[in-house]
Amino acid sequence: MTELKNDRFLRALMRQPVAGRYLPEYRATRAEAGDFLSLCKNTPLACEVTMQPLRRYPLDAAILFSDILTIPDALGLGLYFETGEGPKFRNVIRSEADVAALPTLKAEVDLDYVMNAVSTIRRELNGSVPLIGFSGSPWTLATYMIEGGSSKDFREAKKLMYGQPEVMHRLLDHLANSVIDYLNGQIRAGAQAVQIFDTWGGVLITWAYREFSLAYMKKIADGLIREHEGRRVPLIIFTKNGGQWLESMVDVGADALGLDWTTDIGTARARVGDQVALQGNMDPAMLYAPPARIRQEVADILSRFGNGSGHIFNLGHGITPDVDPAHAGAFIEAVVELSGEYHR
Amino acid sequence: MTELKNDRFLRALMRQPVAGRYLPEYRATRAEAGDFLSLCKNTPLACEVTMQPLRRYPLDAAILFSDILTIPDALGLGLYFETGEGPKFRNVIRSEADVAALPTLKAEVDLDYVMNAVSTIRRELNGSVPLIGFSGSPWTLATYMIEGGSSKDFREAKKLMYGQPEVMHRLLDHLANSVIDYLNGQIRAGAQAVQIFDTWGGVLITWAYREFSLAYMKKIADGLIREHEGRRVPLIIFTKNGGQWLESMVDVGADALGLDWTTDIGTARARVGDQVALQGNMDPAMLYAPPARIRQEVADILSRFGNGSGHIFNLGHGITPDVDPAHAGAFIEAVVELSGEYHR
Repeated sequence: MTELKNDRFLRALMRQPVAGRYLPEYRATRAEAGDFLSLCKNTPLACEVTMQPLRRYPLDAAILFSDILTIPDALGLGLYFETGEGPKFRNVIRSEADVAALPTLKAEVDLDYVMNAVSTIRRELNGSVPLIGFSGSPWTLATYMIEGGSSKDFREAKKLMYGQPEVMHRLLDHLANSVIDYLNGQIRAGAQAVQIFDTWGGVLITWAYREFSLAYMKKIADGLIREHEGRRVPLIIFTKNGGQWLESMVDVGADALGLDWTTDIGTARARVGDQVALQGNMDPAMLYAPPARIRQEVADILSRFGNGSGHIFNLGHGITPDVDPAHAGAFIEAVVELSGEYHR
Repeated sequence: MTELKNDRFLRALMRQPVAGRYLPEYRATRAEAGDFLSLCKNTPLACEVTMQPLRRYPLDAAILFSDILTIPDALGLGLYFETGEGPKFRNVIRSEADVAALPTLKAEVDLDYVMNAVSTIRRELNGSVPLIGFSGSPWTLATYMIEGGSSKDFREAKKLMYGQPEVMHRLLDHLANSVIDYLNGQIRAGAQAVQIFDTWGGVLITWAYREFSLAYMKKIADGLIREHEGRRVPLIIFTKNGGQWLESMVDVGADALGLDWTTDIGTARARVGDQVALQGNMDPAMLYAPPARIRQEVADILSRFGNGSGHIFNLGHGITPDVDPAHAGAFIEAVVELSGEYHR
């Protein structure tokens, strides 16, 4: 394998990519592909949009261009996107029979387009920076599969969870096995770190978060390839609105916890100590502020984290599409220039 | 003044109302009024819908039927509701000039319909249970006024907050003064406790929550009438997704903190000790579960809180409109029957 020219990310020291969906060159490529899902499934174009932010900015990692909902799509639910709305599914899972009828995922066959994208991007990166693969968490996938899309109150998912917890557990177990197979496929195809996005774990009661979301991220952590090509494959877990639960997230055995922007990173570090690296966590909306204000915020976050290693600087959530690329540039520049001073 | 027959709520011991918007009799009264805002402004009908849940269930308090956005409406922003969508404003606040042009609220004149509703309900309650008044928090009101409605990412509010913090502070200060005037008006009209709903404080960075939301709730707490008719007028503050910040919320000087359902009430109690009472916090979606499951959850929450006083049992957020009234009944029955056993 090629030597990594920049392995700073894998040493979990510094800064991480902001994906490129707000860039004009992204919008051009997307128009060429047709829609979002066609772009994910088009190997050369998915590779192209993964590379775009790396050409503009001095980033320490690349993140696979894909969607968190590829697994339910491969399980036959029929993912689609309507303009201006979130993801939707043509079929939903509502009963014990629906869960029992779910096929077993063979990720390298059923999601071959993702594996092709990973290996193509990895080749294209040519050892410059590591490539991060990802998946949605079982709980997050389950909410979309049950609701048929996003939700305000997750009433159908919660009806199943509270009313027939054993059926919910069967679904989550099936999804955890699918995620293991999927992420191991990505690792074998060339992903050098993997992240689990638990977008909706934060809508759960504390005990339900542990039982219905965290336990399945732990199952995944236990089933993942953790060393490949002679290197540790770091696992990052992220629960949006999970700031109350950092201590229990440590028990999953991930290498890093992603923090959303609401959590003070200094407090978080004091709570989890040196057990895990922390990834985050500037408010994406800060990118609407003037560049000088962005720079001040970067310094503030670096200073709150304090001296020492284990900080992967990133936004605390996805970037919004109408951000000025110059502001994203000012953000990354500030991280590059200021991190040495604060994280001695 | 009439003696209170049931002052259990004011002793901050037990259970609190679930408002009645899911009841068939509510839907009938609302149809009679026309729309939601007309119902708020119609004194006899607003009184009627406040009383409805009390006729069905053994509750320990009544909560004023109104909306959190009455203040911006009275400041000239033009509140309206479209079916199936959240609240909207005809005019928005985006600039320093917009903030400077806001009129000073004279709550007892400009929001006389709220004062009339409070005094009418109070008379109708005839000392049976106390009446709770409420308002939105300054930060929450500001987000709606700037965005013109609800928002996914609060980009306009955050643009102003990060880009022109002094303008945002002027707006929040104006709103805090308005809320003081409004809640004091409600207290003089007969409200025996008041609650501040900070629906959107949880989208802020920790430091920004303190500076732009919490500081103004503290200003309100300092400006409120805290004793009236020879009794303490308890203040309850609630920040949705504020579970990370309970310790700093204590410093506001409120009598109780509202907890959303994601926070473990036992952990919360350990964190804040006896400094404040806690109100909450069953997941409203639990009301979709079978009554036996609801009862089990009530027992679980009571047990997590543990022995002792200072628990006002309530849902962790608003009830959803399609809940079966029999399930709401099972919830309240379980609280009434089980609380003595757990909170000795």
